[in-house]
Amino acid sequence: MREFDLIARLTAGLPSNPSVLVGPGDDCAVLENVGGDRVLLFKTDAVVEGIHFTSETDPRLVGRKALARCLSDIAAMAGTPTAALITLGLPAEHDPAKLDAVYAGISELASRHQVAIVGGETTTNPGRMLISIALLGWAPRNRVPLRGGARVGDALFVTGTLGGSLPERHLTFDPRLEEARWLAEHFRVGAMIDLSDGLAGDLRHVLLASKVGAELLAAAIPISRQARLAARTSSSAKPALVSALTDGEDFELLFTVPSAEAVPLHDAWRKEFPDLKLSCIGRIVPGAGITLRDKHGSRKLEAHGYVHFQQP
Amino acid sequence: MREFDLIARLTAGLPSNPSVLVGPGDDCAVLENVGGDRVLLFKTDAVVEGIHFTSETDPRLVGRKALARCLSDIAAMAGTPTAALITLGLPAEHDPAKLDAVYAGISELASRHQVAIVGGETTTNPGRMLISIALLGWAPRNRVPLRGGARVGDALFVTGTLGGSLPERHLTFDPRLEEARWLAEHFRVGAMIDLSDGLAGDLRHVLLASKVGAELLAAAIPISRQARLAARTSSSAKPALVSALTDGEDFELLFTVPSAEAVPLHDAWRKEFPDLKLSCIGRIVPGAGITLRDKHGSRKLEAHGYVHFQQP
Repeated sequence: MREFDLIARLTAGLPSNPSVLVGPGDDCAVLENVGGDRVLLFKTDAVVEGIHFTSETDPRLVGRKALARCLSDIAAMAGTPTAALITLGLPAEHDPAKLDAVYAGISELASRHQVAIVGGETTTNPGRMLISIALLGWAPRNRVPLRGGARVGDALFVTGTLGGSLPERHLTFDPRLEEARWLAEHFRVGAMIDLSDGLAGDLRHVLLASKVGAELLAAAIPISRQARLAARTSSSAKPALVSALTDGEDFELLFTVPSAEAVPLHDAWRKEFPDLKLSCIGRIVPGAGITLRDKHGSRKLEAHGYVHFQQP
Repeated sequence: MREFDLIARLTAGLPSNPSVLVGPGDDCAVLENVGGDRVLLFKTDAVVEGIHFTSETDPRLVGRKALARCLSDIAAMAGTPTAALITLGLPAEHDPAKLDAVYAGISELASRHQVAIVGGETTTNPGRMLISIALLGWAPRNRVPLRGGARVGDALFVTGTLGGSLPERHLTFDPRLEEARWLAEHFRVGAMIDLSDGLAGDLRHVLLASKVGAELLAAAIPISRQARLAARTSSSAKPALVSALTDGEDFELLFTVPSAEAVPLHDAWRKEFPDLKLSCIGRIVPGAGITLRDKHGSRKLEAHGYVHFQQP
């Protein structure tokens, strides 16, 4: 192990943690096995210039977002992230300061969640920057909430507020790692997913995997201030509720618990996370697809979250 | 084609293995922990159109190469690969048949080495195809040969023949997984690395990490038939020995053992791997850098290996 220690010291600078036996600089990273009654979580996610960010986006936030998206997926499994590898595709002509800023954004967020950066590579990708992050983590063996775990009668919850993430929040969101672990530890979480495609789209993934349907209460859906503002500013904008249902990149948690746990969860949440809204937005029902209930009655939401609404 | 349909089609029938608890389709892949007295190995590697292959390259071989490069790094740690995630960056307009062929090339090689494909994603990368693979594996805790493990007096060995990989072998090489595990199990392997940048360049990585020098015997360096042919065909081509020293992408193993093990290793190797050449090409000496000895005497080797990307 002396050799492992030496190399770890030589490659200092990037965030590390006690799971790292060999960090950047050898053929592979070498990590402590998670052992005990745990399972491994493994995820990659890529962001591409012109698709997930623009050439004008603060490169520090680009790096931050690239890692945050992966962390959000580990959160959706109520897991603990441990180590990441970074792949940077760069145009032949690139600004080294920009690259440093990308790494700084990744490193800051990694440090905050005790994630080690254990290596990666830089390769040429003419025309645009691309950042792909591979992330490793773990979770207790019998406490991994999958998409297929929703049951008829379950209450459906969402953290935070939804919609209007595009101008800023998609770059600055906090992955709900702590909240997810607390949930899985204290309540019988059935299904859980992080909201990347929009509430309606991601809920559909859960419903398909669980072979159930859902009824949403329109009045209970937490609409973000940004979505409300956008709806007010322009007559051509989506209604705010449609934003909350269909805008992507909220990166909040959507999950189910048995209905008997809904009230105890609400009470415990308010004590544990007083600054983060938690909303019960509906329930799991027999059948398939999403039904939306508002003061005008009930109607089926169409595929992939696109809804035809009359302005109220 | 929509992303979800595309992923569903690509992930149908991917290779799996008993370590996979949850494969493609949830927020993360969930894998059995390796447990026992083992450590985790973690690696990513990307290939980019126009850099590592051309638009004319057989897409099946492109996929094969993308995975084989990562497998070669696990081999360099004498490890066993278990699970991979595939990231595909694709131009907006792409041929689905080409994509299927890339996946087929990856899957064939993965199956051969019992590697599960546990997920991944496709993203738009205008202008060119990019394939990044994240690979997980394991090795016995106290038997991971690092780059820093070479000691003065050690014998220096290389598998196979070197140079001239570019026209074909860089696409079809076999990662030396079985050979590397056998070596680490039966002999005291000091340092080990896979040859991606060329013998001279990769040996330098070992020497720097181990704080030693090396003396190479020119006559002992195994030159490939392709390198010899190329040197003969054109008067402007590199001499064959220079090809063997500096051409990249051989993906053979370079390693050290204590000198007392050199002869027993040679004998045992010939029985175990009769079809793969093993050459003792020199020894580890005090100091730094590479000295080349031939019939004209000794000289310091200045030539760096072919470097196609920088490790961060």
